[in-house]
Amino acid sequence: MKTVNCKNIKITDGFWKVKQDMVRDVTLKSVYDRFKETHRFDALDCIWKEGDPDMPHVFWDSDIAKWIEGLAYSLNYSENEELEKIADEAIEKICKNRDENGYFNSHFLVTGERFSDRTEHELYCAGHLMEAAVAYYEATGKKALLDAMCKYADYIEKCFVIEKSAKFITPGHPEIELALVKLYEITGEKRYLELSKFFVDNHGANPDDQPMYRGCNELYNQDDVPLRERTTADGHCVRALYLFCAMADLAYLYNDKELFEAADRCFMNIVDRRMYITGATGSTCHGESFTIDYDLPNRDAYAETCASISLAFFGNRMIKLNPNSKYADAVERVIYNGALSGVSMDGKGFFYENPLEIDVDYNNVNKCTESGKRFPITQRKEVFDCSCCPPNVIRFISGIGEYLYSYTADTLFVNQYISSDAGIEGMTVSQITDYPSTEEVKINIKNSNKKYVALRIPAWCKDFEINKAYTLKNGYAYIEIAENDEILLTLSMPVKFISANKRVHDCAGRVAVMRGPVVYCLEGVDNGKDLNSIRIDIKEKTELSEKEFLVPNITIKGYKEPENENLYFETTEDYIETKLQLIPYFAYANRGETDMLVWILKK
Amino acid sequence: MKTVNCKNIKITDGFWKVKQDMVRDVTLKSVYDRFKETHRFDALDCIWKEGDPDMPHVFWDSDIAKWIEGLAYSLNYSENEELEKIADEAIEKICKNRDENGYFNSHFLVTGERFSDRTEHELYCAGHLMEAAVAYYEATGKKALLDAMCKYADYIEKCFVIEKSAKFITPGHPEIELALVKLYEITGEKRYLELSKFFVDNHGANPDDQPMYRGCNELYNQDDVPLRERTTADGHCVRALYLFCAMADLAYLYNDKELFEAADRCFMNIVDRRMYITGATGSTCHGESFTIDYDLPNRDAYAETCASISLAFFGNRMIKLNPNSKYADAVERVIYNGALSGVSMDGKGFFYENPLEIDVDYNNVNKCTESGKRFPITQRKEVFDCSCCPPNVIRFISGIGEYLYSYTADTLFVNQYISSDAGIEGMTVSQITDYPSTEEVKINIKNSNKKYVALRIPAWCKDFEINKAYTLKNGYAYIEIAENDEILLTLSMPVKFISANKRVHDCAGRVAVMRGPVVYCLEGVDNGKDLNSIRIDIKEKTELSEKEFLVPNITIKGYKEPENENLYFETTEDYIETKLQLIPYFAYANRGETDMLVWILKK
Repeated sequence: MKTVNCKNIKITDGFWKVKQDMVRDVTLKSVYDRFKETHRFDALDCIWKEGDPDMPHVFWDSDIAKWIEGLAYSLNYSENEELEKIADEAIEKICKNRDENGYFNSHFLVTGERFSDRTEHELYCAGHLMEAAVAYYEATGKKALLDAMCKYADYIEKCFVIEKSAKFITPGHPEIELALVKLYEITGEKRYLELSKFFVDNHGANPDDQPMYRGCNELYNQDDVPLRERTTADGHCVRALYLFCAMADLAYLYNDKELFEAADRCFMNIVDRRMYITGATGSTCHGESFTIDYDLPNRDAYAETCASISLAFFGNRMIKLNPNSKYADAVERVIYNGALSGVSMDGKGFFYENPLEIDVDYNNVNKCTESGKRFPITQRKEVFDCSCCPPNVIRFISGIGEYLYSYTADTLFVNQYISSDAGIEGMTVSQITDYPSTEEVKINIKNSNKKYVALRIPAWCKDFEINKAYTLKNGYAYIEIAENDEILLTLSMPVKFISANKRVHDCAGRVAVMRGPVVYCLEGVDNGKDLNSIRIDIKEKTELSEKEFLVPNITIKGYKEPENENLYFETTEDYIETKLQLIPYFAYANRGETDMLVWILKK
Repeated sequence: MKTVNCKNIKITDGFWKVKQDMVRDVTLKSVYDRFKETHRFDALDCIWKEGDPDMPHVFWDSDIAKWIEGLAYSLNYSENEELEKIADEAIEKICKNRDENGYFNSHFLVTGERFSDRTEHELYCAGHLMEAAVAYYEATGKKALLDAMCKYADYIEKCFVIEKSAKFITPGHPEIELALVKLYEITGEKRYLELSKFFVDNHGANPDDQPMYRGCNELYNQDDVPLRERTTADGHCVRALYLFCAMADLAYLYNDKELFEAADRCFMNIVDRRMYITGATGSTCHGESFTIDYDLPNRDAYAETCASISLAFFGNRMIKLNPNSKYADAVERVIYNGALSGVSMDGKGFFYENPLEIDVDYNNVNKCTESGKRFPITQRKEVFDCSCCPPNVIRFISGIGEYLYSYTADTLFVNQYISSDAGIEGMTVSQITDYPSTEEVKINIKNSNKKYVALRIPAWCKDFEINKAYTLKNGYAYIEIAENDEILLTLSMPVKFISANKRVHDCAGRVAVMRGPVVYCLEGVDNGKDLNSIRIDIKEKTELSEKEFLVPNITIKGYKEPENENLYFETTEDYIETKLQLIPYFAYANRGETDMLVWILKK
């Protein structure tokens, strides 16, 4: 099975058109401005010297690279001369300032010894530059960065594989593994694929490798066991997920069943035991990491935007290995919830962490010591010192087309429902839908060279209709199609109350409200204080209300505790009825600082 | 009003007789053995030198002192030649090894410069030695330590007040303030009282004082405002509460209304907003401190045993200033719950932290970094590096008589109900009761020189009977008594379900089970896994069952979630009925490592 490159898919209307327009009109420029102000673009000049201010940070190149990659995806659907010129200039500086070996890193070229410290983000930056190079070439046909990155990859191969002059074996922060696969796919140069395999095979399998940061053990960097033997997703979430992406890529390209099974075990461990209902991962800020099965605290969730996005990357790769809807279901959960909450409705503000509960007063309880229990920030920021998430949001939204389709010789798989026009090996596939606001999806197919279309029936949907005969298999409805055909799919989308497994102790006695793939939340601005003590009765009727944030809000009767000034008092059965308004989780914190809650007490 | 020294009260039977016998027969010796093994007693030789192992720790003297103080209280009710000899030897070493000024500190005599660093526990140790000296003199008539401590107090006055040679003004860890009051009371030497007042007046009122530890701000040490202006209890709980004890003492002895009002504000802020249902305080391990109103997390509660004990100290002092039952109510809450949980049923094991929830699997979630979210330990230990709690438990239980009575010229106040014989200024007062197992208390009074007896009617008791006419005022039932009289009090003690204020977000939707003053909990060993998801219906009947831990256990029907392997699933109203057993909170963690929960989901 293959997936369809986002450059072949144009989002035409609806939910993601709004988001792509926002990225094109606001986010790209705003993130550029913040990166310019914070000297990230200046660092490409490589003229910093000891004593100067603003030493280029070890991961700044990756910020620029992801911005270029995101811009490239947006150029697929909209020209942008101003930003393309900025990207060209940045690329020119990279090409000019790299050394004679093709090495480029704006930090190491002006400071320390290259390839000497595993914990620095040197190969991570290289990987992101490679991804940018591939995307920018595909979008613009400009080959300068791609050529530069091929030369750089050659040099990396020399240092890590041929001459082994590097002082470590595998990168401290995976990323280059999946990037080398992209480099292989665009160039056909198998050495890049093999270099990726070299890194993947050595992760966790090479006791001679350098240790990680002080304070981080071998789990942090997935170094505890060889990747092929992994049974759980551990350590730093983004590191783990980028690495799992490469595992999936290599399993696919080498037809490596063992590697697929390892990747699938990790995937299932995540989605069955270590993932928030929003698709987010990272149960603790300590190591930005997975912890143990079912440990999913809400208020101090880490739930990094980049981790959500990278779970979508991972899921979309697994689709190619196994025609089972569980992967695209996870992608859908991520893209409408834990990834999208990372950006404000105006496109300028970003969350690094996406908790499932905000308690404004209590999130700042450390009054008498500098260090202490840490909670996520409550309002989005335009830039972070470690600003990986903002450009990741750009490439995720600009590249949303990537998730729509996959295909085999005889079947087209429709994985996500988004209004769009796609060209797939000569055939044209259009979707017309206001999903997930409404339940209907119309799919027009022209010049089909496939025998079947397989429509994903989301696991959340218990009631659907198709205007054709179908066979259900592994979560897909397979439909025999004509050369030109029209399919009408209706995914019934009632409001549902969702429970978490009883082993998720932080959600005990609580329900989440979902409609279709969208998770909802209460905000203080609508529902007052002490959201935690408000109850809902799952037998109550819910109503859809205004479409304040791209999908309808939901109203339901709620039950509040009566006022009582005592700290402890005899329990009563008294409640005050109230009308609650829920908004989509992805839109939280867009109306000033206020409390927020996903998991609501069940009456 | 005066309170009655515990040396005049003999506990004769029931709950506290069991605990006092345990301390006498097991705890005193066990703690001594651990302190001996860990070289705390050897440190009194003051022969340590650079390069030797086991440098005397800065707070070791306080451990010895509290042990001697606790032993002294136990000698009031039981002779113990072996341990008295150990105490005598320790005191002999202290007297022998102090310097010519009377200064003694086993750490500073062999290491750094004395009175130079506010953050060290130098005056804290001195204070505890003074308390020990007073108690040991009262119990044994032996005056050596008391004389030594008077000389030491004189030297402290010289260094801090007269010559001002000390490099700080107030101690980093309060304790000496309340100890100096005791020294004044036993010697009649008013300079000691004034020295206490000097420290109390300067706390938070002297911007020239040394700062505290790096990382701790002025709240940590109650340095943010002058004590007279305090409106909230902030910072390190034990430091705050020892200081508040001295405030209460000075308010009483100087008849200082302003100081009383400040102390009362702090007391009410604690009991109305910052205290666990167990009487424990300390919402975070960071700074071992109070945080903000209603922030009372259960699983990562700090709830230090010493903080609970010191709230009892504080409450018992406030009783003398204001004949209101709220103080003795708080004392009762502490002594049956958050303080007593600090020691195992066998008398050998101790908790420093007393959380209201243990989740064995989840309490150890930090898998990939050294530092991380911190949870209390799940099993009691016999000694800690910082072992303040074990000897505090000894003096608290041995001295439990202290909390029973207070009196004015015409009224005897009965503050706690404990089987005992007391001699109070010529009158004899006996209590016969199995409280809090049973509801009846018989009080025999002989040779009364009071007109009234005022019986505390606990705030938890809504239904009581007295065999005499009474007038209820501020939580006390005032009864006119004859010279020889017998009072029968029945405090109806049904099992109650208690809610927390809705601002306590960590208890939302949950109830605690109490019977009389005793808080109950579920343990995994009785009730299985996932206690957090078990519900109880407050309309269900409860039953008292076997008296496994001094008071009856409680059984009630419970509702468990059905098994469901999914991480998220549509909510149902299905439950599995089950029989739950609750045990008294103070007895948790006595049957192996297991989950524990105080706040139970309300169905």
